[in-house]
Amino acid sequence: MPARFKHAALVGKYQAPGSRRVLAQVADFLLSQGLEVSLDEATALNTGLGEHPVLPPEQIGRHCDLAVVVGGDGTMLAVARQLAPQNVPLVGINQGRLGFITDIPLEALRETLAPMIAGDYEEEQRTMLAGCVTRDEGGSLRRTIFEGHAVNDVVVTRGGISGMVEMRVEVQGDFVANFRADGLIIASPTGSTAYALSAGGPLLHPGIAGWVLVPIAPHSLSNRPIVLPDSGEVAIEIVAGRDCSLNFDHQGLASLLHGDRILVRRSAHRVRFLHPRGWSYYATLRRKLRWNEGSSGPGSGD
Amino acid sequence: MPARFKHAALVGKYQAPGSRRVLAQVADFLLSQGLEVSLDEATALNTGLGEHPVLPPEQIGRHCDLAVVVGGDGTMLAVARQLAPQNVPLVGINQGRLGFITDIPLEALRETLAPMIAGDYEEEQRTMLAGCVTRDEGGSLRRTIFEGHAVNDVVVTRGGISGMVEMRVEVQGDFVANFRADGLIIASPTGSTAYALSAGGPLLHPGIAGWVLVPIAPHSLSNRPIVLPDSGEVAIEIVAGRDCSLNFDHQGLASLLHGDRILVRRSAHRVRFLHPRGWSYYATLRRKLRWNEGSSGPGSGD
Amino acid sequence: MPARFKHAALVGKYQAPGSRRVLAQVADFLLSQGLEVSLDEATALNTGLGEHPVLPPEQIGRHCDLAVVVGGDGTMLAVARQLAPQNVPLVGINQGRLGFITDIPLEALRETLAPMIAGDYEEEQRTMLAGCVTRDEGGSLRRTIFEGHAVNDVVVTRGGISGMVEMRVEVQGDFVANFRADGLIIASPTGSTAYALSAGGPLLHPGIAGWVLVPIAPHSLSNRPIVLPDSGEVAIEIVAGRDCSLNFDHQGLASLLHGDRILVRRSAHRVRFLHPRGWSYYATLRRKLRWNEGSSGPGSGD
Amino acid sequence: MPARFKHAALVGKYQAPGSRRVLAQVADFLLSQGLEVSLDEATALNTGLGEHPVLPPEQIGRHCDLAVVVGGDGTMLAVARQLAPQNVPLVGINQGRLGFITDIPLEALRETLAPMIAGDYEEEQRTMLAGCVTRDEGGSLRRTIFEGHAVNDVVVTRGGISGMVEMRVEVQGDFVANFRADGLIIASPTGSTAYALSAGGPLLHPGIAGWVLVPIAPHSLSNRPIVLPDSGEVAIEIVAGRDCSLNFDHQGLASLLHGDRILVRRSAHRVRFLHPRGWSYYATLRRKLRWNEGSSGPGSGD
Repeated sequence: MPARFKHAALVGKYQAPGSRRVLAQVADFLLSQGLEVSLDEATALNTGLGEHPVLPPEQIGRHCDLAVVVGGDGTMLAVARQLAPQNVPLVGINQGRLGFITDIPLEALRETLAPMIAGDYEEEQRTMLAGCVTRDEGGSLRRTIFEGHAVNDVVVTRGGISGMVEMRVEVQGDFVANFRADGLIIASPTGSTAYALSAGGPLLHPGIAGWVLVPIAPHSLSNRPIVLPDSGEVAIEIVAGRDCSLNFDHQGLASLLHGDRILVRRSAHRVRFLHPRGWSYYATLRRKLRWNEGSSGPGSGD
Repeated sequence: MPARFKHAALVGKYQAPGSRRVLAQVADFLLSQGLEVSLDEATALNTGLGEHPVLPPEQIGRHCDLAVVVGGDGTMLAVARQLAPQNVPLVGINQGRLGFITDIPLEALRETLAPMIAGDYEEEQRTMLAGCVTRDEGGSLRRTIFEGHAVNDVVVTRGGISGMVEMRVEVQGDFVANFRADGLIIASPTGSTAYALSAGGPLLHPGIAGWVLVPIAPHSLSNRPIVLPDSGEVAIEIVAGRDCSLNFDHQGLASLLHGDRILVRRSAHRVRFLHPRGWSYYATLRRKLRWNEGSSGPGSGD
Repeated sequence: MPARFKHAALVGKYQAPGSRRVLAQVADFLLSQGLEVSLDEATALNTGLGEHPVLPPEQIGRHCDLAVVVGGDGTMLAVARQLAPQNVPLVGINQGRLGFITDIPLEALRETLAPMIAGDYEEEQRTMLAGCVTRDEGGSLRRTIFEGHAVNDVVVTRGGISGMVEMRVEVQGDFVANFRADGLIIASPTGSTAYALSAGGPLLHPGIAGWVLVPIAPHSLSNRPIVLPDSGEVAIEIVAGRDCSLNFDHQGLASLLHGDRILVRRSAHRVRFLHPRGWSYYATLRRKLRWNEGSSGPGSGD
Repeated sequence: MPARFKHAALVGKYQAPGSRRVLAQVADFLLSQGLEVSLDEATALNTGLGEHPVLPPEQIGRHCDLAVVVGGDGTMLAVARQLAPQNVPLVGINQGRLGFITDIPLEALRETLAPMIAGDYEEEQRTMLAGCVTRDEGGSLRRTIFEGHAVNDVVVTRGGISGMVEMRVEVQGDFVANFRADGLIIASPTGSTAYALSAGGPLLHPGIAGWVLVPIAPHSLSNRPIVLPDSGEVAIEIVAGRDCSLNFDHQGLASLLHGDRILVRRSAHRVRFLHPRGWSYYATLRRKLRWNEGSSGPGSGD
């Protein structure tokens, strides 16, 4: 059994009303379990919770062996991106509707989190995407103008008022296709339940060493999502379309130019999520996607 | 305002346990509202409810100005098909989860149905499909080997063990396409929320004078559902595939042969559904298709 | 048989190299058929074709009984929008790959167009969309800030860098649903083969008196395209999302604000397309969507 | 570089007219390259080609270091299934339209195949599926009533005339969901371009160590294809539905009963395909799925 944890970093969503009270409650609980508790710097500043030591995010990994994140999936994604290089495991506490990756309800804090702190948990690792944009500077020089990481997805989209973006896609230097579409999503298994799913992509189990390319509203009716091994680098070159933008987990770069190349590879870092013993990926899917409930029409029932 | 009703036929789903009690309760309520009540023959036989006059289904129209149907959407579809030629309006009472076309909960019987009986209701008419199959008898003779009506859909499907069915489709004598697929659905607006929806078809508002052709798992990736005016006759000829079957609202004919032609046109009859005042088609969609509830993934929320 | 035509307006795509030569060739052919020929003002200016009378577009209907459009579907759409109020029938000549609505190849000009000019043609009318945007000016005043017409579609889309747009949709004052998506397309039957098709919408036969609402990458997995009668007004209110834009056939308005309402109704005008005798809507679909060609995988064939 | 080949087994599609001539031509070519040539037993019997030694299929692996298959993807699949346990590499020669996995055109036999025989080729391995059906014999005994292998897919489908099949799916003993649908496809990467694609599944690159579960016309609108690691066993139990059938690459078992369990795991065998140097998976996709050709609608072009 894994060893018990000793020092937790507490990171929270602080914009919501009542956050301070909830964070204080979680901090008290963690202290009651014999843990040292430090507060993420921004969390401390924004909530005014003053009774705990404060750590800048880049030092959390040096001091803490656990990060407790209070908020929804969006908060968790942001924290995961920030802490991934520090290899700290994450556990997510959710006040409202449970998310895909924040699965401990605040109401069940004690019975769920106490055994996990004592070492009784399941760890799951999720791959991340790393990417950059290179631009032709003339004279056969290309300069890297942007770098980013994503837990969910890297997304190229057309400008808000232009008709479409045309992209030339290569994988490991092998030409795949020219896509003319509203955009293109490269999603990790974690991201396969997010934007990629809305755009018609499949679900990818976190155990799949791959990612999925999902064209958004493709002009060609035979374009389909394609699942590729994440061992290869994907290169996307902007061939046509004005004001395209690029997003890593919704954080991005506007105004891509023709000839810009977006390179995406698997990140060297992984996200470490801790779940309560008995956690099930499929149970999360059933709950979030409402697979248990029929929506069949007349004639299909009684 | 429409006149109040005088004589209701009561038709029910009698296989379910407790049906007799529910039907008796509805009958008593109708009597208490000053209506004459007759029982559909099969309903009477199967439930043993003996205290009401009994009518064979083909005489309901002559005696009754209202049919009260107790059951789910499937029951309602069967009754609607049977009574459509008699022009009797239908109202649906549902014991469990409300359906697309059975929208009065048993618990709200009194407050919902009493005003309707008194003439305060909304009437909605739904088109039906009529179809037949003709077979080549040799010597350029074609014989009609099957006729049917459908409220929801006419469906051609491949045999259980054959690979696919190939169908040549014409509309008003104009060649549309050869479809190679698991099957082909022609759905009315009513049927557009049933099997056609599962197979990827769009929703058709009941006010659309059209139907939708939805290929099931088509071999060609550019085949798409197509909405056609219901004023034209659709002809489907079986070109290839063994043991294909044909269904009108799930009631059908197995063992279609090569060269068999299925002809589908709008029926001369319409189904008349009565709804409580204020009924909304869109509210039904929202409720049945759960449009109010998000299922967004990580990153799309907080 | 319809009467023969007397005076043609010639409108062309003039950006492409070689346009001047092609337009001159078409003009000569029309003259050789005994027609008067006038040149659309912009066409004359841009090509320098000087030997024909010139008409500003708004006077074409007063003088001409036919408009001959040289270009692709995009050119035809623009001309159709401009001439629709003048009720002039349109015929489309295409130099390259035939379009959905430009179906006379330049190579077959003589044999195809001569009989049409003599009165042997088929006319087809297509509905158009009319829309406007109203904005709350305070004090319960709403001002119309934009008006437009569309042959294909009216499209609301999220800003290039914002996550999504949330829209509250009503039809004839009846609440339909709140859509959270990349955008929403309202497409006419003509537009159902364009952007709406890429976004997953069905094909609508031009004889359908309806339009289709297609959400783009909707957050809710149970959102589906819905076909509505075009007799009702659709109202779309922007509920959330920054920098949303609105397009009528790709021409539009950026920077919609929260509370802006887009109102869409069937236009009073229709587009009149003339086709060669024997023209078939389905043949066009088969050709453009490549329905004749299989793309089946291993095991489905030999 | 791999060594040159010494002894080829020739296997062919013999139903087609002209097969004998084609097979004789290929045999002569192989002899001219210095190879020993043996004929597959059934191929020899059916074509009457008498001048070559004959081998029963189960002995091909013992004698031959290459199998040359003449036919389409369907022929190749059947041969691949048969020879997979013998570890013989396969090369596919196609007379008509090239397939996904038969990529040497008969016309280019000499220039393409000669270098491959000499050892200049690329080898690609494809996973296979192995499955069985167990049935409850009473007294808590379950008996295996069927076993099979598939290169493409294992498919459960409803009976031709029943409404649907309900299946309870588990992966590695973990409950996934109950699917109510026309059927369920488990496809390998090779099968992802076949039936699974028609039913809405994604493309899986052959380098993905996974398979995809694709429900066919699922009742629940939120059911989506899901890609799972192929290291886990998938168990499908028939919960409801009459006359369901099971197919391994279109070869199957009819009349599944309630309670029957279909177990699918990755086969211990792999298929070995040989391709000409420079072969590209993506080029095959582009060619077969026609990714290079637009089918955009009016307004998207000029």
